[in-house]
This record gives sequence, C-alpha cells and structure tokens, in this order.
Amino acid sequence: MDGGKKTPEEPFAMRGLKEQLRAFFEPDGVVVIGASRTEGRPGYCAVENLVRLGYRGRIYPVNPEADEILGLKAFPDIESIPDRVEFAIVLAPAAEVMGLVPRLASKGVKAVTLVSGGFSEYSRQGAILESQIVEAARKAGIRIAGPNAVGPINSSNNLSVFLGPLPPLKKGAIAIVGQTGQVCSSVIEWMGSALRQGVSKVVDLGNKADIDDSEVVEYLADDPETKVIALHIEGMKNGRRFLEVARKASQKKPIVCYKSGWSEEGSRAAASHTGSIMGSKQVIDAALKQSGVIRVRDMDSFLEISKAFAYFNPPKGNRIGIVTLSGGSGVMAVDTCVDVGLQLAELSQETRRRLGKIQPPDLEVSNPFDVGKASVVLYGPDRAYKEVTQALIDDENTDCVLIVSGAVQGKTVYVPNPEVFTEVTNEHHKPIVAALAGTDLELTWEQSSILEANGILAYPWPERAVRALGALREYGIYLSGSR
Amino acid sequence: MDGGKKTPEEPFAMRGLKEQLRAFFEPDGVVVIGASRTEGRPGYCAVENLVRLGYRGRIYPVNPEADEILGLKAFPDIESIPDRVEFAIVLAPAAEVMGLVPRLASKGVKAVTLVSGGFSEYSRQGAILESQIVEAARKAGIRIAGPNAVGPINSSNNLSVFLGPLPPLKKGAIAIVGQTGQVCSSVIEWMGSALRQGVSKVVDLGNKADIDDSEVVEYLADDPETKVIALHIEGMKNGRRFLEVARKASQKKPIVCYKSGWSEEGSRAAASHTGSIMGSKQVIDAALKQSGVIRVRDMDSFLEISKAFAYFNPPKGNRIGIVTLSGGSGVMAVDTCVDVGLQLAELSQETRRRLGKIQPPDLEVSNPFDVGKASVVLYGPDRAYKEVTQALIDDENTDCVLIVSGAVQGKTVYVPNPEVFTEVTNEHHKPIVAALAGTDLELTWEQSSILEANGILAYPWPERAVRALGALREYGIYLSGSR
Repeated sequence: MDGGKKTPEEPFAMRGLKEQLRAFFEPDGVVVIGASRTEGRPGYCAVENLVRLGYRGRIYPVNPEADEILGLKAFPDIESIPDRVEFAIVLAPAAEVMGLVPRLASKGVKAVTLVSGGFSEYSRQGAILESQIVEAARKAGIRIAGPNAVGPINSSNNLSVFLGPLPPLKKGAIAIVGQTGQVCSSVIEWMGSALRQGVSKVVDLGNKADIDDSEVVEYLADDPETKVIALHIEGMKNGRRFLEVARKASQKKPIVCYKSGWSEEGSRAAASHTGSIMGSKQVIDAALKQSGVIRVRDMDSFLEISKAFAYFNPPKGNRIGIVTLSGGSGVMAVDTCVDVGLQLAELSQETRRRLGKIQPPDLEVSNPFDVGKASVVLYGPDRAYKEVTQALIDDENTDCVLIVSGAVQGKTVYVPNPEVFTEVTNEHHKPIVAALAGTDLELTWEQSSILEANGILAYPWPERAVRALGALREYGIYLSGSR
Repeated sequence: MDGGKKTPEEPFAMRGLKEQLRAFFEPDGVVVIGASRTEGRPGYCAVENLVRLGYRGRIYPVNPEADEILGLKAFPDIESIPDRVEFAIVLAPAAEVMGLVPRLASKGVKAVTLVSGGFSEYSRQGAILESQIVEAARKAGIRIAGPNAVGPINSSNNLSVFLGPLPPLKKGAIAIVGQTGQVCSSVIEWMGSALRQGVSKVVDLGNKADIDDSEVVEYLADDPETKVIALHIEGMKNGRRFLEVARKASQKKPIVCYKSGWSEEGSRAAASHTGSIMGSKQVIDAALKQSGVIRVRDMDSFLEISKAFAYFNPPKGNRIGIVTLSGGSGVMAVDTCVDVGLQLAELSQETRRRLGKIQPPDLEVSNPFDVGKASVVLYGPDRAYKEVTQALIDDENTDCVLIVSGAVQGKTVYVPNPEVFTEVTNEHHKPIVAALAGTDLELTWEQSSILEANGILAYPWPERAVRALGALREYGIYLSGSR
C-alpha cells in the first residue's frame, strides 16, 4: 500500500498512500481558491499565514478581482496559473466545489483541503453533494481533506494553511490530527505558549469524507519528524480499519488519543458538525486500548501527555523515586502514583547511604525523600536537590523520578535554582519530571523552560506530572506485552 | 461555644472559639521568636512579609543579637517587650518551645503558630513533646496552630505570617485551610497569578496538635470576609466532630475539600509528615459528601472550583445553554456536562425565535448553538456572541450558560472582543462560564481578566468550565435536599 515513487502523471489508484499524502504535506506549491484582500477574512489569513510564516513553496492566490494579494501575483482563475501545482485550499461556496474538481486536476493538483462548510455536517443535501465531490475527486486523482476542515501545517517547510492568524511555527516532535480547525488551532497556540512545545505536522480532517484518521496515522507512523501522534477524534467511519492501523503504528510510536462525543448528547452534537457516527464508550475505549492507544479524557491531559511522549521513552518499570520539598505535595504525588499504577521504589543500600549523608543522622531515609525536613536548611536547596535527584536517578531500583520543588519569588532557603539540574546526569535516560507546585505563573513558566532545556519535563502540580509518567508506563507495558 | 466577648484576662476555658481564633487572625500585634537579620532565612521572611505587606498591627522581632531588624526595634528576649501582645510566631528549636510557653503567656499571648518541626511528624519522642507542649499551652490559655505549620494570613489586616517571600495580598472571598505551608503558599501564588483570584484568610494547621480543621471551619463559616472555604486535608483526628461541623457550615457557605493521602502509601507519607491518621477512601468520601462537602481530586479542580464558588451561587437546576464557535469544543463540553449531571436545556419558543434571526433561515436552532456555522460570518463575532449569549441567559429553561470562544492573535472574523460581554445582562444571576479554548497563554489570561471583570468566569478549556458548573450544581442539590 505504501511507498509509491513520485510519478505525477500516473493514475490515482496506482499511487501509494505515502505519495498521496506527500502531496498534502509537502506540495511544491499551494493554490488558494477564494483568496481575499480583506484583512481578517479567512481567504486573507490563508495567504497571509503562508507568506508570514515563510512557506517554502510557490503560492497562487486565486481571486477574480485582485491583481495582487499580500505582494503576491493573484490569478483571476485556475486556468490562468502558469504552472502545475500539487495542492489547493478551497474556500469556495459548497455549490461551486464540484465544478472546481476537473479544473484543479488539469493543473496537476493531487491534494485539496476543502474548507467550505454546508456539506454532511449541515444538511442531507449537503451529505449527498459531499459524496459526489469525493467520487469525482477520486476519479480525477485528487485526495480531499474535509470538507469543513483547515490545514495542513508542516513545520518542516512552513506550510501553514490556516484561516486565523497563526503564531510562528515552533518545530517539535508532536503531530496533531484533529477533526476541528478551532481545536487544532487552540492546540497549536496553547501548546506553543503555555507548554513551550512545537509540532511536526497538524491535520484537521473535518468531515472525513475522504482522507481519514487511519490513513493519516499510517502516514505519520513513518514520518521521521514525528515522535508522537496526538489524535483528537469524535467519530470513525471505519473503526476496524483504524484499530488495525493503530495497532501497527503504536509499535512504532505512541498514539495519544482524545476521543470526544461519548455521551448520547455529545454524539448528537458531533454528528451535527462532522457527520460522524459513534460506538459505545466501553467498546471503543477497550478496542483503542488493545491497539496500544493511550486514551486521555480532557484537553489538558491530551496536551501534557503528548508532550511527555515527545520527551521520553517509556520507563522500564513502574518504580518511582520522589524528592519533595514538602510532605503535602509528596502525599498528592503518591496518591496519584497509586492511581496510575506506579510504585514507590525500594531504594538500594547505596542510595540509602548517599541520602543518609544529606540529612540529619537520626532521620530515616525514605521515598518520597523530603528535603524540606532538614536537608535544604542544612545543605542549602541547590546541593540538597542536586544530590538527592542524582542519587534517585542512579538507583538501579528506580525507573523514573519526580522532583517536587517550588518556584518562589525572591531569595529563599527552600527552593533550588533550576540551573543546578544542568549538573545532573541521566545516563539511562529515565523519565524525569518536575512539579513546580504552582506559585507565580510567570516564574513557573520561566523555571519550567530551564528545567525542560535540561531534559526535565515540568508541570505546575505533582498530580499532572505523575499522570504523565503513568501514561508513559502504560505505553511501556503495551510495548513489552505485544512484542 | 461561640461568641465570647473580648476579656483578655479571663481563663482560657471561658473564652469562646470565636475569641480564641480572633487572636489568631486579628491579633493586636505579632511577636516573632527567632527573627533573623539574614535575608532569605525563614526568621527574616517572617518579619519581612509583615513589614512589606503592611500588617496593620505591632511587630516585635525577638533576637538576642540584633538591635534592629528591617527597621524595627528588635528585642533580646520576650521579657524585654514593653507591651502585651496577642499572637506569636515561634521558630525556635523544638527543645526550646516548652520553655517559651509561660513566658509568652505572661505577655498576654493567646495564639501561637508553631513553625518548628521535630515533633510528631519526625519521631516518637517528638510526638510526646508535642502533646506536652499543647497541654502546657492550654493551661496557659494559648491556642497553637501546628507544630510544623506557618500562617495565618488575613488579607483584611495584611497579617502575613509566612517564611518565604509572599506576593502582595490580593483580597478575595476564598479562605484556604491547609496542612502544609508549601501547599498553602503555592495556592496563594498560583491562585493570585494564574487564576487572578484573592484570598480572605489562609491557615496552615501542620500537625494539628491543637487547633484543628473543625474549629477553623466553624470559625470561617461565620467570617463575613469568606464566601468559600477551600480545605486541603490529609488526615482528621476527630472525624465525627469534623463531619458535624461541616454539615452545619455547609448550610452557610460551600466547603471545597481536597482530601489527599488516600492510598496506603500516601497515607504512610502523610503520617510521616504530620502524624495524621486516615480512614478508608470510600467511607471518608461518602461521609464528606453527606455533610455537603464538595470533594475534588487534584489541585487544579481544588483551585478552579473554589474560584467558581467565589463567583456564583449554585444554579437553580441542571439545564445548561451553550454557545460555541466550533462543533469540536461543543462536543467536549457536552461530554463533560453528561459526566457531571448537567443537561442541555430545551430552548424556549422565544429563544428559538431570537436565535433563528442570528443564523441562516435554513438552519435549525440547536443547543449547543454553533455560531461558527454561519452566524459569525453573517453578523460578525461580536454581535453573534452577544445576542446568542443574551438569549441563552434570558431563556427560562436555562439554569447556567457556557460560552465557548477563543482568544486569537490579531484580527479575525471568528472571535468576539471580550468587551462585548459588558453589554450582556444577567438579572437572574445565573452562573455564566467561558472557555477560551486555549490559544496563546498571555492573551487568554488578558481576555479572561476582561470576562471576569464582567462576572463571566473564564477557563482555558470547556471541560474545566463545565466541571466547575457541575460542582456548583452539586452544592445546589445538597442545599435544596437538606433544607
């Protein structure tokens, strides 16, 4: 099914999936049908993002009334475009789309994002039109994302097909596959700003009339830029095929899935906007799990857990070492460890000896190791945190480590300078996460950046940090059980 | 038990709880035993916070080697203090605390926060010493918070007894009752900065050797500055008494409770740091629920749900109206509504008529009402959002409203200016929450501030916003069932 070579003129059916989706993610150029000169309009933003974010390909705005849009030559119609071009974004009214298909095909277009609404998500007539368009496109050798979709985004070539103003693309290891433009756009912006994390590719599949999750997941499983596939789905049209693809793909890289539209009401709402059909929650959830898919239940987990997979491979086991500044945060962490199946490591003799030296002699060495009991006062927070963290990482009985600290305004004897963690080595590449335990938003953000530059993933609260470790562990169990 | 008049010389047993805790929250002055001149030390921060945050009472630093600390006259010992004073914070080593009790009593001290560790959280000997100190203090007419505690904080008089640098106190309606200084401090800072929310009072009860949750909750139930009691507990020493107090207090105001230390491991970790004893999860959870306590499961919910209660009274029923910009976010919202027992409102004829005018005539009026389908394009996001929101609020069939929007960089045709919501009226005071659906952290923060200034509580994601409404509704059900 894969691996067709690029032979632009061969008939559609002969080209492999990889080549079909390559035209979508890595086209030689982009036609914008419905380009606009009016700032803020979708057809303006579509061109503006490509220009401003520096798309490395040709751009052909089509607008019958404009000579130039954003400094680019505009074309009155498709026929006036002098070159062949592989990709088009179509913002035309639903009724005009069918007529565009052969005209786009005649210019060599192989992939289209159909932005227009008014199809299966809108009315029964729209659904009929939708399937007619897909049929015509297939015959013409064109794959369609959508309708009712935006994208794609590819941070490798700055392809940035979007209808609202995008921030500069931050390159990263996470591919986002969504079903709603607004969700995709929120994810990109929030992940980039709140979570300091970039993306490899972003796809919004909208109504999934043609290109579907299965195909995109299969493609991304072999995409070298992508380490994690973060998938938001409301409905699947061919669940069995998806599960088969997911099972194979999750052997190669983790798939984090936020499935929404569970409830009868949610399912009805989903049907009305993408025309999808859903199965029962238990059945789908169990089937996804069996295929190695990491299921999450809300946007926060979706983003945070995807990010964890971008940082770490799964831990080898479920044994955690915890250093904490306060018993209270340690207790929250331990509660969550139990919830997600992590177990407090039984520290080795060597670690007990090392940790015994960094606290008063009459205290027992325990896990969580509470540096706030005396170590930070006796030895200072920098030394206490650095030595305890290193000892926990080095212990052969730990598979992952949690650092509970704090980000405090001004000077204090309690909280380490995050720079001290540059001196920590992690030769077995165990996942190390930190909880900065809240405090000021801005400072937490800054200190998190420093920790993450050193390979320690930072969260505001211990529960979130531990849940991310739990997801990593779940994937590790799946991999070891299925190989 | 309550309401004793202030008669400083009457014996301890005769003074009511209100008067005893008044000396703790509203003392005429503060003695700092263990005040330090060294920046960053706990004994320095303790004085520094009082001075910098403008505590409206007298401050007496005690340090045998200093004449002056932070511009305040320092005293070599308790005896040198010329005045009577009601409150002391004690940072002395555990072994010296017993000797301080009669000396503090002789100066009129009625309440002490015992910061020192080395008691029941540390060793068996420490536990014995702890109970001896409490016994001596009781005989001397002194109530103790702790040991192993900090606080209190009172935003009415800027009493700010804390060992790390505090941000300026933001006055608010939430009282925080905690068991760990670091958790309390994280809560204050994160709530103030990330959630834009202030506190009325903050108490850390540490080992709870004397003053316990029951007493503080009873006190806060009658505190006019406090609208919500946010309680973090690991263990209760007298659960039956607590439940009785909570049942009465929750008739007056909501109690949001984050109970940690559930797991056997967490419980052991909790015991080692506060000496608390725990019951089984199911039993405690059910008992708390029966007493009207809103239970939350992590720090995010703890803070966000407490904040919701600071904004709103419970909705009268469970019927929600939703306006959304995107089907996808609407689906997430609806899923969560079902999880928390909210139900999509059956919109009235009048509302259907009003909403019919703000979308194309061939579309049905539905709830969630998706303005992104056409309304924002036809009428602009400001008008579409304003009119739809107002119609949903005015509908007699809705009890609460969720606005799903977005915060987007630059100009766009999709997202409303948050200022438009100043024109929305909410005469029945229904809870109205908004989900800005992620996007840029800073912009989300700014736009959330604008919405909140207009009485619309803002969250980044719909799931969180709906969970907060669910908690409000849970409390409403409790109140109506128990009255």
